[in-house]
Order: sequence, then structure tokens, then C-alpha cells
Amino acid sequence: MQAVSYCPRMRVEILCTGDEILTGKTINTNYSHMARRLGEVGLTVHWGTTVGDDRESLLQAFHQAGERADAVIVNGGLGPTVDDLSQEVAAEACGVPLVLNEHWMTRMEQNYARRGRVMPPNNKKQAMLPENAEFIDNPIGTACGFAVTIGKARFFFTPGVPREMRLMLEEQLIPRLLKIGGITGVTRLKRFHTFGIGESRADGMLSDIPAFQNGHIKLGFQAHYPELETKLAIHSDSEADLNIRLAPVEAEVRKRLGNFIIAEDNQTLEGVVLAALLERGLTLATAEMFSGGHMAARLAPLPGAERIFRKGVVTRDPGELGINGVSAEAAQSVGRKLRDESRASHALALLIDLDEGPERPDFGGTVCIGIADGSGTVARQARLIGNRDWIRAGAVEMGLDCLRRHLLGLPVDERIDFERR
Amino acid sequence: MQAVSYCPRMRVEILCTGDEILTGKTINTNYSHMARRLGEVGLTVHWGTTVGDDRESLLQAFHQAGERADAVIVNGGLGPTVDDLSQEVAAEACGVPLVLNEHWMTRMEQNYARRGRVMPPNNKKQAMLPENAEFIDNPIGTACGFAVTIGKARFFFTPGVPREMRLMLEEQLIPRLLKIGGITGVTRLKRFHTFGIGESRADGMLSDIPAFQNGHIKLGFQAHYPELETKLAIHSDSEADLNIRLAPVEAEVRKRLGNFIIAEDNQTLEGVVLAALLERGLTLATAEMFSGGHMAARLAPLPGAERIFRKGVVTRDPGELGINGVSAEAAQSVGRKLRDESRASHALALLIDLDEGPERPDFGGTVCIGIADGSGTVARQARLIGNRDWIRAGAVEMGLDCLRRHLLGLPVDERIDFERR
Repeated sequence: MQAVSYCPRMRVEILCTGDEILTGKTINTNYSHMARRLGEVGLTVHWGTTVGDDRESLLQAFHQAGERADAVIVNGGLGPTVDDLSQEVAAEACGVPLVLNEHWMTRMEQNYARRGRVMPPNNKKQAMLPENAEFIDNPIGTACGFAVTIGKARFFFTPGVPREMRLMLEEQLIPRLLKIGGITGVTRLKRFHTFGIGESRADGMLSDIPAFQNGHIKLGFQAHYPELETKLAIHSDSEADLNIRLAPVEAEVRKRLGNFIIAEDNQTLEGVVLAALLERGLTLATAEMFSGGHMAARLAPLPGAERIFRKGVVTRDPGELGINGVSAEAAQSVGRKLRDESRASHALALLIDLDEGPERPDFGGTVCIGIADGSGTVARQARLIGNRDWIRAGAVEMGLDCLRRHLLGLPVDERIDFERR
Repeated sequence: MQAVSYCPRMRVEILCTGDEILTGKTINTNYSHMARRLGEVGLTVHWGTTVGDDRESLLQAFHQAGERADAVIVNGGLGPTVDDLSQEVAAEACGVPLVLNEHWMTRMEQNYARRGRVMPPNNKKQAMLPENAEFIDNPIGTACGFAVTIGKARFFFTPGVPREMRLMLEEQLIPRLLKIGGITGVTRLKRFHTFGIGESRADGMLSDIPAFQNGHIKLGFQAHYPELETKLAIHSDSEADLNIRLAPVEAEVRKRLGNFIIAEDNQTLEGVVLAALLERGLTLATAEMFSGGHMAARLAPLPGAERIFRKGVVTRDPGELGINGVSAEAAQSVGRKLRDESRASHALALLIDLDEGPERPDFGGTVCIGIADGSGTVARQARLIGNRDWIRAGAVEMGLDCLRRHLLGLPVDERIDFERR
């Protein structure tokens, strides 16, 4: 679905600099993060440019963006070495000299002193800003940001280090950009993570909700198989008004997506499963055939998992699990046996029977899941179509989701969009 | 180290189109793949542009690149839907009409017919090319490529589907670009994957080799922790000459990087370990503490692993493995016990003792690895510094590498750059 911009006439551009990005050595995740976050707060990115650590290219890129845009975020080139050119070329584009920012120089020196070190002389370069530039704080690094006007656009300079860029984008840049765009008030992004619903079906299930129809709340999706992220973006004059308007829509989405919601906001499926086990004082053992330990690998490393995770067994050999082949019954039998052996309160078995031969359009696998606890066993069987990695990812998600459903008292065998019968 | 271009004066640009890329919903891996591959064959990308599915932006981007560049690769916008605008805007920029390419139309219809389906009418759009455009074949998709001249640059249009773009880049675009740049002959990329050597040390170990010094062979590195990729790019008039020149340099690099080479070209560490086990008719069981099954997850799903992979055990609880704590002796004891239980010829135990408390600059973990086989046990112990994910990734790599070294008769305890003593 088309993103609704709160400020469609404001033109934002992103300009990424650096040879590592230009030559493809580094994948440009900074660009996608910035563009996505700006979209989520109602701003629209119209153009992206990538240039190297090259004076002529930078100058040309600054001038072109300055002619087209209202605001430009420049990323990278603020480091202490000679190939970091952003401040210099910004000063040239503005026709002003570089001037030492005493405040930032002192801050850098203090930071070095605090760690018992002397600041290397070439760091001084990072405190040299174009004359009259607006200083933008970087609380976690040595490259401060700054803003200048080139042509008709306001340029915001940010460091290439992802965590520094991300923090400055949230705390410093987004408020300034919203102000330039005349957008006041507060924004929020509510996220639901589902397993088992495809993007087009989710759109069909939700898009008739009036708040989405009239654009008061923006509905968006991001599929990262096997999960789908459903995003509700809302903007309001006040926190109180935002809460009042969001609450009923959030509740309606939660009702419609129902049991398929595996997590919300920053939660993960494995985190929800772990929390459910911890809350109830339960323990877990897992067995996996063909998924190669990917299910245990999601759960076992989490903080707190040492209290619930008793044991994981991985094999390719049915004999090792005491079964002849893959079936729902076999999965339950593996679960029962594993529970007895490990003395865990719950055992989760995930078996996959892959089609023979090379991959082809209808290649697939049968997934059998068995869960054993003190009151008996439950099972789930499904056929998934796709290549080996696709089936494995879907099966691991289904295994964890079945356990989530079982622990939360939900049906474990609701049909999902990815399965064939 | 700086890439050496075989044709520094030729100016190549990449223009990526599409709202999914512009808004950051999709990370632009097509760009990094194209730029990297062009660099590897001796071409230099000077500028990257990203615009959405927007007529005005596309036209402006075409004209600007046409003024600056010698060659432009355009990616995306060749689909059958109305928001795919590349052919239309290319025709407009050239001042020519769109004309049906009968050859491609027939090919598309035949492809549909072969699958027993009728081609939807909107696919016809994909056979409409700017008049006099050069047709570029896409053997695996419905979007053909084409080339036109806009301004002073030759524009090559490619589909956004990654596997289609990649194939066309190799088979169709790179030969044409090399021709435009006046680069004749053949190129090859030889790759070594190492574990345990940092990028700067590898550079120091190799950069004095004369073929790198004089630029006859380009040396490059790509770090993806815990592995480092060392790349040798060579260009020559003939295959025979290329082989003669590359062979001694390849041998010298292999000698200098020595035991740290875990794989070459398209091989992987886990693939090399699996092959060594299969060749020798051996079998394997693994035990992991804290790495959450990530070691088994690398090996167990590989084709052929069912013949060697007997069992993997994952736990957070030392008691489950019959030990009191993490040490080299404990790792050997776990290995011995696991080998007996599983009746595998080899058992590999990976234990990690993480520092207590929150992550801090000197946060780390002690990694203990034990390998048991018919002739006894060997052990390896190392302290790694970094956050939990960093230590886990390094430990898993070290576990697999120890087994590789043991199977190949190499020392298992060579010091690596990532460890502290």
C-alpha cells in the first residue's frame, strides 16, 4: 500500500558518501534505515545519491541536491583521516572557511582524558566546522554532526557509524526535519509480528478499518519470511490525543490478526516463548531432524534461557531418535521420550521429511511437530513448498509458534497461508 | 588497499529505481553486488543514484547521468505493471517511440505456453522497447534488458529480480562494458577465505608480493567476521597467459596464509569439514554450551551431512554434560563421553564461559574446544573479547576450524588475531 506522507510537498534527499559504500564493499544499510524511519514519521525521501571520498563528486552532489531538495541528510565522511572530506567540501559549497568548534574540541579532549589517553592531533579535524554551521551533538562518538544551508536546502551531516547515525537521526534530525516540514506534535509506530498470514491477505483483513481508509493512521507491511510485520504509524498534536485515537485501532488490529500475532513491537517469537516458560516455571528440551539445530539456536542463547533450556538434540538420523520415519505420531513419540530423558516439563520435537531429488517448482517437505508435557502430547502436521532453506525457516518458525500457542492455550493447528493440503 | 582500475578514465554509474528501494523497505543489495563485481573486473563505479517509480525523477536522473558518465546500469522498473516506467522514460529521454520487440513477445508467449498457461495481456508491456534499442537477453525471466544512448552515455537496463540481474550482469553487461572501456581479454577472481587473521595483518603479509606491487594482479580484502576474504583479481589477453601469471602468485599467497586458509573460492569452512569427514568415512557428534546449536546448524543441514552427522547436543547447563565448569579438560571429557554415547568416530565439544554482568569494553568469554577420536583427545583454549554475538560467532568458527585442522593434520592451537592471552 502507498505510504501517506504528512508533508508531501517537503522534499528530503539522502546523500551517502564513502568509497566502501560506492564500491559495494559495504552494503548500504544506513540508507535503508534512514529512509524507512523518515517514512515512518511521515516524511518522504525523493532521491538517494551515493558518491565516493572524492572532492569533485561531493561538491557536485551537494549543489545538485541543494537545487532540488528542501532537506538533505549527508551520511559519512566526518572521520579524522584525510579521505574524510564532508566538512571541507561543505565549507567550500557554502563559500565559508572551516572554523574550530571549541565546545566539541573540549568534549573530545575530555573523553580521551577520561579514558586516560591523550587525543591524537588528527582528531582536531573533527572539530573543524563550516563557519556559522549549526552544531549537532553526537553523544556517543568523536564525529559531531552539523547543519548548513546550500542552495535552497538545509543539509544535515551525520557520521557513518551506524549506531551513532541512528541515535542522531532519532534525537536530533527527525525533530528538525519535522519542524522544517511544519509538522508539529508527536508520532508513534505500533508494530505487530505475525506468522502464517501473507502480506496481501493481511492487507485484505485490515485495510477497511476506517482510520486506515481516511489516512488518520498509516498502515504498512514489511514481509521478512516467515514473519510479516504490520505497522501502524500515527501522528498527533499531543501524546494524549494520540493514545486516544490509536487505542481502538490497535485493539481492532489485534482482534483481526488474532492468534497469528506472535509478538509486538520489539518482542520476538523466541522471546515470547521464553517469557511464557519463565513465568510458568517450566523447562524445555528440543529435538530437531533436518532443521540442524536452528530452532534451539533461536532460544538457547537468550538471556534467561539457562533457567529453562535443558537440552537440545539435533540429528539427521531417525534411528537416533528411535523412530522409523517422519509422522505426527513419530513427533509425539520423540517428544514423550525426550521429556522423560531430560526431565524437562515440556519437550518440543520438530521433524521434517523433505522431498527426494533436486529442487523443482513443487519441491517441498512435510513438517511434523510434537509437544509433550505433563498432561500428554499434541501434534501439528503441514506441507510447505519451497527450497530447502525456505522450508527449514518455515518449519523452525512453526515449531516455536506451536509451543507458543500451546503455552498460551491457543489452537496449535490453525491453517497458515504458506501450507498446502 | 585502493582498487586498481584497468580503465580509470571510463566513468560507470549505477541507477537503481523503485519505491521499495527508495523508501528503504528493501535493502539495496543489488547495488552493492553490481558495484563489487564491476570493481573486480577492473571497472570503477563513480556515482550511485536511487529514485522511485516516478516519471519526473527518472527523466532527470537519466539526463544527469547521461551528461556525466560513459556507461550507466539502470536496475529495476521493467515489470509488467503501470508503476514500472523504465522503458517508457528511456524512450522519452531518447526522443523515440516504444516499439514492440517481436522476438521477445514470441519468447514470452512460448514460455507461458510451455507451462500450459496463456500470457496475461499486460506482459506485452515488457516487450515494448525504445525504437532502435539494443536487445539484451534475459534467459530466466520475463523482463528483457536493453541498451540505448542518452547524452554521451550508453545505458544498460536490467531487471530488479536479483538472480536475473546477476546473470545478465555476468553474461551480457560486463563483456559490453569491458568493450566500451577498451578492455579486451579475460578476467578472473581468485578468493581465499581465512579465519584468524585480521585485514591489516593480511595486507602486511601479502602486499609486498611483486605482482601486487606493480598492479599486475589486484589484491583486495573483504572482512565478514569471523572470516576474512582475500581476493586476487587478474586481467589478461588470454586464458593461457592468465593461468601462467596467476599460478605462482596464487601459490605464494597460499603458502603465506598457510594453515589459516579455511576454504577457497566457493567453498565454505563447514563444506570443507564435511568433505574431509566424508572422504575418510568418518562420523561426527557435537556438543555445544552457550553457542546454542549454531555450530551444528552450520554442518547438519548440508547435503551429505546425513551420512556423517550422528548427533548434536545443545545445552546451557554444565551438569547436563556431566561437567562442573568450563575448561580445556572439561571439553575433552565431554568429547570422550559424547563419542562413546553416539558411537561416532569423532566428537567435537565447544564450551564457552562468558564473563558475568553487562557488556563493557573488555567483556569477553573463554572458549574451550575438545575433539575426541579413536586415538585420544586434543584441546584448544582461547579468550575472545567482544559482545555475546561476536564471541559466539568467533567460537563457532573456531570449533569448526579446530576440527578441520585436526582432520587435515594441522596444529589446532595456532594463535589467532582475535584472541587475548
